[in-house]
Amino acid sequence: MADGDDDVPLILTWDEDTSGLLTDDASERPDENGVGGYDVMNNTTATPGPGRPSARSQTSLQQSWEMNYQEAAIYLEEGENNDKFFTHPKSPRALSAYLFAHNHLFYLMELVTGVLLMLLSLSEAPAVPSLRLDVYVHATLELLALVMVAFELCMKLRWLGFHTFIRHKRTMVKTNVLFIQFIEAIVVLVRQTSHLRVTRALRPIFLVDCRYCGAVRRNLRQIFQSLPPFIDILLLLLFFMVIFAILGFFLFSSNPVDRYFDTLENSIVSLFVLLTTANFPDVMMPAYSRNRWSCIFFIVYLSIELYFIMNLLLAVVFDTFNGVEKMKFKSLLLHKRSAVEHAFQLLVSRQRPDGITLKQFDGLMRHYRPRMSARDRFLTYKALHQSEPTSDMLSLEDFYKFYEVMGLKWKARRSGEHWFDDLPHTAFIIFKGINILVKSKAFQYTMYVVVALNGIWILVDTTLFKSDLSWPSAVPWSYAVFLTIYAVEVLLKITGLGPLAYFSSGWNLFDFFVTALAFLGLISLAFNMAPFYFIVILRPLQLLRLFKIKQRYRNVLDTIYELFPRMASLGLTLIIFYYSFAIVGMEFFAGVIQPNCCNESTVAESYRYLNTTVGNRTVLQDGYYYLNNFDNILSSFVTLFELTVVNNWYITMEGVTSETSHWSRLYFMTFYIVTMVVMTIIVAFILDAFVFRMNYSRRNRQEALEDPEDEKGIVFEVELRRAEALQALEFYKQVGAGSNINSLQHICLALERHQNSSVVFLGRRSRTKSDLSIRMYQEEIQEWYTEFSSGNLPELGAESPQVELEFPVVSTHSIN
Amino acid sequence: MADGDDDVPLILTWDEDTSGLLTDDASERPDENGVGGYDVMNNTTATPGPGRPSARSQTSLQQSWEMNYQEAAIYLEEGENNDKFFTHPKSPRALSAYLFAHNHLFYLMELVTGVLLMLLSLSEAPAVPSLRLDVYVHATLELLALVMVAFELCMKLRWLGFHTFIRHKRTMVKTNVLFIQFIEAIVVLVRQTSHLRVTRALRPIFLVDCRYCGAVRRNLRQIFQSLPPFIDILLLLLFFMVIFAILGFFLFSSNPVDRYFDTLENSIVSLFVLLTTANFPDVMMPAYSRNRWSCIFFIVYLSIELYFIMNLLLAVVFDTFNGVEKMKFKSLLLHKRSAVEHAFQLLVSRQRPDGITLKQFDGLMRHYRPRMSARDRFLTYKALHQSEPTSDMLSLEDFYKFYEVMGLKWKARRSGEHWFDDLPHTAFIIFKGINILVKSKAFQYTMYVVVALNGIWILVDTTLFKSDLSWPSAVPWSYAVFLTIYAVEVLLKITGLGPLAYFSSGWNLFDFFVTALAFLGLISLAFNMAPFYFIVILRPLQLLRLFKIKQRYRNVLDTIYELFPRMASLGLTLIIFYYSFAIVGMEFFAGVIQPNCCNESTVAESYRYLNTTVGNRTVLQDGYYYLNNFDNILSSFVTLFELTVVNNWYITMEGVTSETSHWSRLYFMTFYIVTMVVMTIIVAFILDAFVFRMNYSRRNRQEALEDPEDEKGIVFEVELRRAEALQALEFYKQVGAGSNINSLQHICLALERHQNSSVVFLGRRSRTKSDLSIRMYQEEIQEWYTEFSSGNLPELGAESPQVELEFPVVSTHSIN
Repeated sequence: MADGDDDVPLILTWDEDTSGLLTDDASERPDENGVGGYDVMNNTTATPGPGRPSARSQTSLQQSWEMNYQEAAIYLEEGENNDKFFTHPKSPRALSAYLFAHNHLFYLMELVTGVLLMLLSLSEAPAVPSLRLDVYVHATLELLALVMVAFELCMKLRWLGFHTFIRHKRTMVKTNVLFIQFIEAIVVLVRQTSHLRVTRALRPIFLVDCRYCGAVRRNLRQIFQSLPPFIDILLLLLFFMVIFAILGFFLFSSNPVDRYFDTLENSIVSLFVLLTTANFPDVMMPAYSRNRWSCIFFIVYLSIELYFIMNLLLAVVFDTFNGVEKMKFKSLLLHKRSAVEHAFQLLVSRQRPDGITLKQFDGLMRHYRPRMSARDRFLTYKALHQSEPTSDMLSLEDFYKFYEVMGLKWKARRSGEHWFDDLPHTAFIIFKGINILVKSKAFQYTMYVVVALNGIWILVDTTLFKSDLSWPSAVPWSYAVFLTIYAVEVLLKITGLGPLAYFSSGWNLFDFFVTALAFLGLISLAFNMAPFYFIVILRPLQLLRLFKIKQRYRNVLDTIYELFPRMASLGLTLIIFYYSFAIVGMEFFAGVIQPNCCNESTVAESYRYLNTTVGNRTVLQDGYYYLNNFDNILSSFVTLFELTVVNNWYITMEGVTSETSHWSRLYFMTFYIVTMVVMTIIVAFILDAFVFRMNYSRRNRQEALEDPEDEKGIVFEVELRRAEALQALEFYKQVGAGSNINSLQHICLALERHQNSSVVFLGRRSRTKSDLSIRMYQEEIQEWYTEFSSGNLPELGAESPQVELEFPVVSTHSIN
Repeated sequence: MADGDDDVPLILTWDEDTSGLLTDDASERPDENGVGGYDVMNNTTATPGPGRPSARSQTSLQQSWEMNYQEAAIYLEEGENNDKFFTHPKSPRALSAYLFAHNHLFYLMELVTGVLLMLLSLSEAPAVPSLRLDVYVHATLELLALVMVAFELCMKLRWLGFHTFIRHKRTMVKTNVLFIQFIEAIVVLVRQTSHLRVTRALRPIFLVDCRYCGAVRRNLRQIFQSLPPFIDILLLLLFFMVIFAILGFFLFSSNPVDRYFDTLENSIVSLFVLLTTANFPDVMMPAYSRNRWSCIFFIVYLSIELYFIMNLLLAVVFDTFNGVEKMKFKSLLLHKRSAVEHAFQLLVSRQRPDGITLKQFDGLMRHYRPRMSARDRFLTYKALHQSEPTSDMLSLEDFYKFYEVMGLKWKARRSGEHWFDDLPHTAFIIFKGINILVKSKAFQYTMYVVVALNGIWILVDTTLFKSDLSWPSAVPWSYAVFLTIYAVEVLLKITGLGPLAYFSSGWNLFDFFVTALAFLGLISLAFNMAPFYFIVILRPLQLLRLFKIKQRYRNVLDTIYELFPRMASLGLTLIIFYYSFAIVGMEFFAGVIQPNCCNESTVAESYRYLNTTVGNRTVLQDGYYYLNNFDNILSSFVTLFELTVVNNWYITMEGVTSETSHWSRLYFMTFYIVTMVVMTIIVAFILDAFVFRMNYSRRNRQEALEDPEDEKGIVFEVELRRAEALQALEFYKQVGAGSNINSLQHICLALERHQNSSVVFLGRRSRTKSDLSIRMYQEEIQEWYTEFSSGNLPELGAESPQVELEFPVVSTHSIN
């Protein structure tokens, strides 16, 4: 194990001595010596000949190794985060900037800055009343945030170098936006008043660019990739719309009562709104009341546009989406593979270029996962080391599994089956009894019956509830009874299964939290601390458990659970679109909509707010739509949500239009089309994910039967022998500094004490979409790999020439 | 070729002599001797021994062959129509009934009866005013139609036999419905007045059962197959709805202004309507105006229900649909294969049991396609006869391609390239010039420019059009100019390409008809025979041609074209649902909705019809919704369409509810759910078809490049040598009666005249979905065949045991 001490790295990442050379030469040819060993060529020109390694001192060799570890760790990180290799740091200075810009503190700073900038619109005029800030306050805050963004960009510039920086599109856009925002913020500060700042709509760019919003970026990319086919079909849709508008104009404009078709513009707008069905059947009625056959026009229009072309739109997007998802998975997989190969090249030694020793692996891990304990590092090494039991090194084939093994949580396999096996006999009997009870079908079905009863009870209770405008002050007894039953169930399950087994199931966790919350509700209600509806909300949640009974629901709910992160990121993407539209809306339409406005329009009724006195009774006539305005960002969001739901959206549109100009319709129509795109993508995504999941479970039904562990996620098994453990402990003691060896010592002691020859560790992690995809595309993946290793890599785009070039350069110019 | 004269069939279908035996024995054991050669056993018991064939007279042998031909034709028909084999006629009497019930006259009768029964509701009270008939007239018509249905059922009974008849579910349902309708019709006739006849809603059954509505039956089956998963998710949807309704009731019922949540029932109804978004944002407004945060309740509800679970619904249906489509294709394919095998067994002779001679094939074709000419029969035989050129018989492997070859239209390949090749030189030059011009890119793009100009012109023209309520009496000159250009184009293309080549393209046909119609419009306008809007409709159709430019549009439009039959059948299915609901609606809600009704409801405004006089001006206040009623079947259809579109559907629901009872809501909610099912299926269908088509064209892009013919449909090539043709002519002259040999004589004469040694015939047909599927599932199909021949056939369900049993029975008890 200690024989790696004199090993010389195959590739030297860079040399402090030759860094002078690097700056003039390497920066000239960033592409040729871009990836892995970019200064090898300089290195070899500087000090050629095979005699050099022996002349090196042990310390400098150690330093070279440390640098290689670090760079390998960076490669692996880039592979994990799907960062392109052309952004790989190219010099020691770039490296320090890279390290500075790649830690959670920095990421958090990015996030906070982005969020802060977006939140500013709460306090800028038109502000939410309670959050209004003076102009100089919010302008100063904005300047501060922008300075932070500028600082982040400077770090990025240092890390990427000027050439790469200006070629990185996203960063360039960000820089330009920053520049504009900066000027505008200063102007605001100087004039002490806000001007028409539509550019605030670009603020989400700062948020989107931050590391934690990678999922949002991916969504946006996917939306843009789906756009071309979408636009094609949209044109078809609009074409038919215009044709029908012309037709409708000729057919119905002779009807003086019909205001929907009196001009060509109105005709087009009416049919656009009809696309969303929001004005149906009203738009038909004047014509229909004159001639009953005119309904055919509308039926044909809706059948073609709404029921056919709109669905075609979904089909086209779904089709594109399908392809894009697979391509994305492929390019991600190959990118990771390439990262692993890069790292491997950096970790092998000159003496033994086909394997990584524990020492080198450990060096890598110290950089890649600094907080991982020595035990886990060693177990990870063991888990990777599968293919050749005779060799004590990781082959490339082993190392390819790096990412699969990395997320594992290690735990020693318990010898006993139950947590109470070690307890005294009486206790054991009791707990065993509870265990059997809790696991019995009868107990489960009794609980289902109780839950169902609870559901019926709630329904009946609510029906009988007299809304005399006063909430009951006492807690209803049924609530207490059912809650007690649930609490008993939770306690029984925890004691019967053991806390660990209990909390490892998602459903049990759900039960536990619902019950605990309900108890909190009860207590706070008893002390009059919470409103009554707090417990009303919690009561029906228990009923969700009923859906556990049927396999399909379990599948559906599992899928929902798996979809959740992706759905959240899609929601965030939507919010970002909302934000931009809200800013534009506020800039143009703030304060436009008031009660009793819009009397010129056809929708005046909806904006009416009148207190008329009929006899001695005051009658309130309230159309409420004046509430849907753009007076501050929160109201705008609600208004935009209403526009997204589409129903009656034309009332808001017509209201705003009647108070401004008819160009305002452009805003609303654009918004409709944008949300249509995003919504179609969401539908396509749900469809795709669900169908994929269903195919997966169908395909793996047999396999799952053979391997029941499959359902519980990914599991790796590693057996650790005593001798091995001691050897590892010795090794880590030598390596010394920074290694957290307590856990390893603990194992050794336990092995000594129990006189066991070995202990088995299980590494678990939950299954990700990527794991599912790997299984689904098994055969194709092999093809991709072959394709990939033959250098035929069109999908990776810009990187592919580098990937092709890099290996020969490295192997021919290695130090030896 | 004539050596088949003494051949003895391997299987005898039945024997006139033994028909006595058949009736007592065969009817006892219909399953054992059900398929192919059911009386073979009787036959062999009656006259065993190998000496029998020689004892038979030539005539009786001929008769046996004729019967086998007929039965083989029936098998092939059953295979084509996907009729199950257990409905195969089992005796000579059944055969005559089968033949009677299986021709287009009978099918037409079924169709007419079904349509007549459905149309009756136009004239039955509540009738469409102009079509009202007296009670005794429509009741007599109904009885007449029902007697016809009864007659059809009797024929079916004769054909199927009692045992099969009562086991055939669809027929039994039809019989029961017939019985009820019969009684009711008589009751109506006796009482001379209509009672509450909700059972009329079942009338579509008669239409659905008729042969021509097979596509509708398939759709219905698919809808029912998709129901179980659909209902599961629907329950999840309704569960959340109820939970939110309870919550909403507790949260908002304290608001006296909020009428949407004042009782639990209202709360549930409001949220049900909110599912359809029809009452959004109104339902939110009272709560929102009181507390701005209450919008969260609605946003969460809509996000979960509308944007998540509703899409999940689509995903589940799409997933099921996918599987069902493939299974259907598989079972159809295997059914056809099995039919071919049955027919093959009946067509081979005892002497040569592994092939079909031309004589036997011709015998089959005389029954299967009586109107096919001798030439085409012979060419079909030649097209099938591919695998073994040495043998003059069709092997089973050849015969499997029967259905692929059957629909081909045969045409001799022209020696020349253009239709004008035979013309004198000057004419040739002129036409050749036109041909080159027409085929040139420049010409095509000029036309596109003209069409685009025309489009802009129409738009500008319409914008400038002053709607002074009088149509222009003269034809606008621009119309005449563009029409002339199009007409010249059509003429050039026809002369340049030749009429046949011109009309073989769908786009050219489209052009031609649009131009021809526009001319008709022009002429009728010139003679003041047609209203002006007739030509207005026609003008923009030309613009559709612009979509030919881009590949994606061509793909989409081709897909639309291919989808059309299926879409039409889905539309018909929807209409059948509409019909049933319309009948129920008319029975319960006819005459309920009147102007100024529903004053008790929240939607009274929409039903208002008032002529108020303000000063000296008459102001008409018209809510129009009283037009959406159930007063006759046509109005009901329009109302139901409006309910399908969903927007503002609750106005109709609330209107009707306020005038009847609140149970009426059940009708509207049920209708919503039913249309939701059908609409989801339609979306799933479009998605599936489109994605399938896209995958297909991606998969075959390379193949299509190699084989440009591919895009034009399925093409078979057969070379007919002169000697062969003469031999065939001789053969058909011998066979004589019923053979239309003119075409064959014509070929022989042409071959003699031109001294050609052979002529090549091309058989073409357009590609069907089935052809695409065959290509898509190539690999799987081989697996299915293997599975199928090993008798492991779970999908064919009821038939599979027969398929397994039948062959051994036949082969062991053959006459020899």
